[in-house]
Amino acid sequence: MKMQHAVAKKANYVNGLDTDAAAATIAAIKADKSLAKFQFRAVNKWVSGGENRSTIRDFYGAGQDDTSRTVPFEFTNGEPPVLLGNNEGANPVEFLLHALAGCVTTTFVLHAMARGIHIQELSSELVGDIDLQGLLGLDDGVFPGYEQIRIRFKVKADCTDAELDDLLGYTQKQSPVCNTVCRPVPVVIERASA
Amino acid sequence: MKMQHAVAKKANYVNGLDTDAAAATIAAIKADKSLAKFQFRAVNKWVSGGENRSTIRDFYGAGQDDTSRTVPFEFTNGEPPVLLGNNEGANPVEFLLHALAGCVTTTFVLHAMARGIHIQELSSELVGDIDLQGLLGLDDGVFPGYEQIRIRFKVKADCTDAELDDLLGYTQKQSPVCNTVCRPVPVVIERASA
Repeated sequence: MKMQHAVAKKANYVNGLDTDAAAATIAAIKADKSLAKFQFRAVNKWVSGGENRSTIRDFYGAGQDDTSRTVPFEFTNGEPPVLLGNNEGANPVEFLLHALAGCVTTTFVLHAMARGIHIQELSSELVGDIDLQGLLGLDDGVFPGYEQIRIRFKVKADCTDAELDDLLGYTQKQSPVCNTVCRPVPVVIERASA
Repeated sequence: MKMQHAVAKKANYVNGLDTDAAAATIAAIKADKSLAKFQFRAVNKWVSGGENRSTIRDFYGAGQDDTSRTVPFEFTNGEPPVLLGNNEGANPVEFLLHALAGCVTTTFVLHAMARGIHIQELSSELVGDIDLQGLLGLDDGVFPGYEQIRIRFKVKADCTDAELDDLLGYTQKQSPVCNTVCRPVPVVIERASA
């Protein structure tokens, strides 16, 4: 992963991604698989009611703690009035859609680059259905989470429709957030003393 | 859900939540289960490379389209340099941690209110492990998504540790984002003409 810094004299960009840096990253991981191990982190603090705030900065990856972010990202969860809040922010299930949209998009763009496909335009619309009887504990037969999430994916690129469909199918399998949603991923919660 | 507007003369708040409005919401859903059906939405537009932006505003719930948000929320996904970006924003798998932190927190706060538990302080730290060989398609035996997410949950409230542990166990089951991560949720992607 360090090699990307060594390349860069005259970078070739496809879809806004540096193809030499990407090739160097893949070569580095093939030589040492442990470089592919990442750990992402967030710290969250409750404010009041449905309002809480996350701070995101450091992560571990490519064999070291990342120090590229001098200022942390901050995001506020909130709820709309109908869910007892004041729209202090988007709500957590909406942030999940943002995460999913972004991950599918970036995964598509990355593997398009790997296939030499140049993307001109790309957008997506997501809808997710949820029955709040689950959250509220009113019906044990209702899942608290999303029943289903649908993505309408629009893309314009220099390839055939068949190639786009193939790439989109591959994207769906390889996207980390999509895979986290589609597959059961263990969440371990441990209570620490306050 | 409309009833919350009718109450409100002298609201009782526990953990920053209006208990009368909450009771009215639950009564309304018990009388008409269709009021619990919500649909959340996001629109995302690719910028370049690993940068893309979501707009979130409208949703359907409580029997109607919500119009409480006059200005949409906007969030930018980005990637750090080691992942070929320029830290244009947090990345999608980090936004997923933010969504999860917020949902577990709000679910805990809501059910604490229902149990008459008053929270003084609440914070959480999340870490998620991911092996990027999955995203990159370098090893079919590696899941592209999170292997596991761990949450360290700190809470100070006017109840016993046993009551906190019981509430936390319940929260883990009822939180919509936690349930979406822990359970396989179908994601349907359809390609539309650009």
